[in-house]
Amino acid sequence: MRLRKVKHAREIIDAHPETVVLNPSDYKGKWKLLFNNENPIHLEIGMGKGKFIIEKALNNPDINFIGIEKYDSVIVRACEKLINNPLPNVLLINDDAANIINFFENGEIHHIYLNFSDPWPKKRHIKRRLTNPTYLKLYQDILAENGCLEIKTDNQKLFEYTVKEVNNFPLKIEEISLDLHKSEYNETNITTEYEERFKQLNKPIYYLKARF
Amino acid sequence: MRLRKVKHAREIIDAHPETVVLNPSDYKGKWKLLFNNENPIHLEIGMGKGKFIIEKALNNPDINFIGIEKYDSVIVRACEKLINNPLPNVLLINDDAANIINFFENGEIHHIYLNFSDPWPKKRHIKRRLTNPTYLKLYQDILAENGCLEIKTDNQKLFEYTVKEVNNFPLKIEEISLDLHKSEYNETNITTEYEERFKQLNKPIYYLKARF
Repeated sequence: MRLRKVKHAREIIDAHPETVVLNPSDYKGKWKLLFNNENPIHLEIGMGKGKFIIEKALNNPDINFIGIEKYDSVIVRACEKLINNPLPNVLLINDDAANIINFFENGEIHHIYLNFSDPWPKKRHIKRRLTNPTYLKLYQDILAENGCLEIKTDNQKLFEYTVKEVNNFPLKIEEISLDLHKSEYNETNITTEYEERFKQLNKPIYYLKARF
Repeated sequence: MRLRKVKHAREIIDAHPETVVLNPSDYKGKWKLLFNNENPIHLEIGMGKGKFIIEKALNNPDINFIGIEKYDSVIVRACEKLINNPLPNVLLINDDAANIINFFENGEIHHIYLNFSDPWPKKRHIKRRLTNPTYLKLYQDILAENGCLEIKTDNQKLFEYTVKEVNNFPLKIEEISLDLHKSEYNETNITTEYEERFKQLNKPIYYLKARF
């Protein structure tokens, strides 16, 4: 995503710790206390401006959602939406995905979403791809038994790479589509801001759901 | 493939047992005697009119190739090509893929190609798809250790199904492309008759190479 610097992003985020948790590592193993219930927790990594996680949370009041996003100029948009329309089952973290192991206890998360992650096309950047084996291992660690990983991307090369790594990890592929918006899975699909643009251009979205 | 009935197909095939082996089950475990060497044997299942297997055989004189095709009106075209230009490393079988276990001993084959197999889109026909678990098990049985399965198709749904079944079997995916002709694997790709038409239409070919 091309980043537009947002003025006062930092100030807005810091002024709303009830939405963007200030010291997420303080809550490792204790997120249910913050949510004040025992509901399963779903995590969106790279949640961007928040359209997906907020709609998911509205449709699923019995699930808690945590969104993590490293860019303050992006997460601030989700933060603003939640300031205007607070949701008891959404919390945000402004940090890097590489740190999730510091934020969550083994088995604390039930479902992970990766939506339109940076493809990092160059070979020397493979270690930054969010579906490389190092990250898959992190996901496995924080996920509960039978935890799920759900991936959407418009990037063909990243999807090919992802299928290979998911296969070799190994995870069990439960759903796959090379054209999500024309598939049986579209009915329940919630789009991201980025995805909406692709939909209008009629470009295929690649989709995968796999279980550890 | 839409079938055009070819006159005298049966007669031509029966008159050339040196090309289309008459009783393939007689050679179970003994194909190397027919080829008269110890070279590895590659099998193309549903080899159609033979463009792929004949080019492969020409490019790889140290590999033996067997093609199996159930329709006599189709295999006769490959047979005619081989009558005109005999190749010592190609033999054909006019039979159904479901019978391969009667034709090959465990571990007798080193590599299997499935090119543009019938997609059998209806759910009640899943058992006919050549990448369903029953067939994958047959392939595993006749393949040598670390044997390879290579698949090409233009059918998106069949490819999605195949990735799921290959992953869950499990096989190790070594190469995958959602647009073979624009990929790094295109350089060594040998096209089939059917594939050539797709190439001209600029439609994507899905490709997968996996190892047992």
